[in-house]
Amino acid sequence: MDNKRTELKVSALENGTVIDHIPSANLFHAIRILDLENTENQVYFGTNLSSKKHGTKAIIKVRDRFFKTEEINKIALVAPTATIIEIRDYEVVNKTKLETPKEVKDFVKCFNPKCITNAPNQHVPTRFYVIQDNAELKLRCRYCEKTTSKDTMVFL
Amino acid sequence: MDNKRTELKVSALENGTVIDHIPSANLFHAIRILDLENTENQVYFGTNLSSKKHGTKAIIKVRDRFFKTEEINKIALVAPTATIIEIRDYEVVNKTKLETPKEVKDFVKCFNPKCITNAPNQHVPTRFYVIQDNAELKLRCRYCEKTTSKDTMVFL
Repeated sequence: MDNKRTELKVSALENGTVIDHIPSANLFHAIRILDLENTENQVYFGTNLSSKKHGTKAIIKVRDRFFKTEEINKIALVAPTATIIEIRDYEVVNKTKLETPKEVKDFVKCFNPKCITNAPNQHVPTRFYVIQDNAELKLRCRYCEKTTSKDTMVFL
Repeated sequence: MDNKRTELKVSALENGTVIDHIPSANLFHAIRILDLENTENQVYFGTNLSSKKHGTKAIIKVRDRFFKTEEINKIALVAPTATIIEIRDYEVVNKTKLETPKEVKDFVKCFNPKCITNAPNQHVPTRFYVIQDNAELKLRCRYCEKTTSKDTMVFL
């Protein structure tokens, strides 16, 4: 049949943030980190989209929201390949390529219950070295040397 | 400035399913029911979109996937206002408006651990009356009469 609608027109983002090049496997981790399950902002997600660089990718677009550095640092842990694009009045005003952090301080819990950072009266902030294990990042505690991975990662 | 890109062109869905008019608050319940966190299909989600009928809505588009009646029955529990649109070769081939089910048999667990349907050796299939509590559906067990709600709902 002719005249099939193989393209649609959609509204572009007027103000807000696009997070592009998220590894598809980590989209829902990113959603939880940014608490997008409970937001009232308009949000679009796409996953398993084709990506020239990485095979597949996921993307998040959030209307009228700009992320704080702390939030972006957390995203870097599950999506070190991501790009953060800030849009104001339909124009890209800022584009940040995330990088794998070398060290992570004070926003992830050490999964080892016996680690000094989990001792109730010591108040020792957590501190990890970041280890790249294929596409995945793991955190080795500077104190107890145990490795916290994606599945055991709890944000403080 | 002139020539701002306020519209984007995107590819329409060639083959797959659109679930429209999902209550925004239940989008992630629907995602979990359809196991879309772990799919390899291309998926798009949008939430807190404006809806003439319901104020806001969420939408899910899944490429190359068509849902079974059992899956659609589960969706009806968290999104009784939803419409399921099947697309083949860019054309709508089927459109189903979901309805609130009157009874739910054998796919939700009764949350009461003492209910006969949870007794290990009895093999009694669960059976619930559906109660509409504002926009939310609750399930009253035919056997123990306890009410299972969205937060305690576990699918079998």
